[in-house]
Amino acid sequence: MVFSSALIENAVNEFAKLPGIGKKTALRLVLHLLKQDVNQVQQFSEVMARMRQHIKFCKLCHNVSDEDICSICGSVTRHKNIVCVVESIRDVMAIENTQQFNGVYHVLGGIISPIDGIGPDQLNIHSLVERVQQQAIEEIIMALSPTIEGDTTIYYLSKKLKDYPVKITTIARGIAFGGELEYADEMTLARSISNRLPLESYVQR
Amino acid sequence: MVFSSALIENAVNEFAKLPGIGKKTALRLVLHLLKQDVNQVQQFSEVMARMRQHIKFCKLCHNVSDEDICSICGSVTRHKNIVCVVESIRDVMAIENTQQFNGVYHVLGGIISPIDGIGPDQLNIHSLVERVQQQAIEEIIMALSPTIEGDTTIYYLSKKLKDYPVKITTIARGIAFGGELEYADEMTLARSISNRLPLESYVQR
Repeated sequence: MVFSSALIENAVNEFAKLPGIGKKTALRLVLHLLKQDVNQVQQFSEVMARMRQHIKFCKLCHNVSDEDICSICGSVTRHKNIVCVVESIRDVMAIENTQQFNGVYHVLGGIISPIDGIGPDQLNIHSLVERVQQQAIEEIIMALSPTIEGDTTIYYLSKKLKDYPVKITTIARGIAFGGELEYADEMTLARSISNRLPLESYVQR
Repeated sequence: MVFSSALIENAVNEFAKLPGIGKKTALRLVLHLLKQDVNQVQQFSEVMARMRQHIKFCKLCHNVSDEDICSICGSVTRHKNIVCVVESIRDVMAIENTQQFNGVYHVLGGIISPIDGIGPDQLNIHSLVERVQQQAIEEIIMALSPTIEGDTTIYYLSKKLKDYPVKITTIARGIAFGGELEYADEMTLARSISNRLPLESYVQR
């Protein structure tokens, strides 16, 4: 692409570094910014820099936070004895959006994946074991994706935690709401049959 | 969406102001920035602010430029007597990418569109007439979109310029390369027949 301005070219290149944004989209975004007020673009720019500079990770659960302890771990109304183990910050947000969970989280920062060179040492596993040792945690919910890597991580964690008096559960696998039975994969269908629920718990929902 | 961090929330909101970017995509971009080095995000931020602050518009053709006169108007190899009239900066880039045009441009900054409240006075039409008066311009190519607004603008400009000894042309309308005849609209097909070309000019391409 030919640009008559180096300022524009640099801005397009920066936008195009973001995931899912190609040169054409980047140009559209840059031309949009160009139409905005100088102050607005200044604000856009400052918010991004400030976010990256001042963001903290919660010392307890490794969730993103503005303080040393995140708002979830710091809340007096959340049950500290139920810990939901998730892969990433995004999963915390997804579960928070359901407004169904009133415990606290533990963000692993990834899952065990030998292909990508991610072993247990790169993840926040040690701090999870420490939490179980030091706090009166009753239940750990493994809310990891139902993939080989997710299952491997659950298996590894359950071995690490087997000496502690803590109940380990996983989120239910099954047919998603609105999903059609005939298009479900065999594994999911098989698990949904073996883990069948009494009708009362279905009606309750 | 629930965010546990105001820094993240602000950044997501800023991204979501951009065209074609919703909250979910904005969050993905923010989490991507979060994984980057502080310096890289700083650079991203500075490039955007600097672009908006220091961008200039060419005093001759209204194209974006790093200087008072853009690199196209300032080039000694471009023919200053052929002016291509376009709607926006993006059209300049599109035509420049073809590497087929060696004249200069005039960016109107929009087209006449009474529905959107855009009249001739909001566009860079006065400066175009001035250029025709003051410079030895031989030909003006109207490279506007073949819409009602585009045709209205061409008609308006041609009336404004009719007293000056300048040849006015429009870019060819016709069936696009790779386009199928049966799917072309009647107007385009009709025009492409009435403006049919001698075979030599076709083979030349």
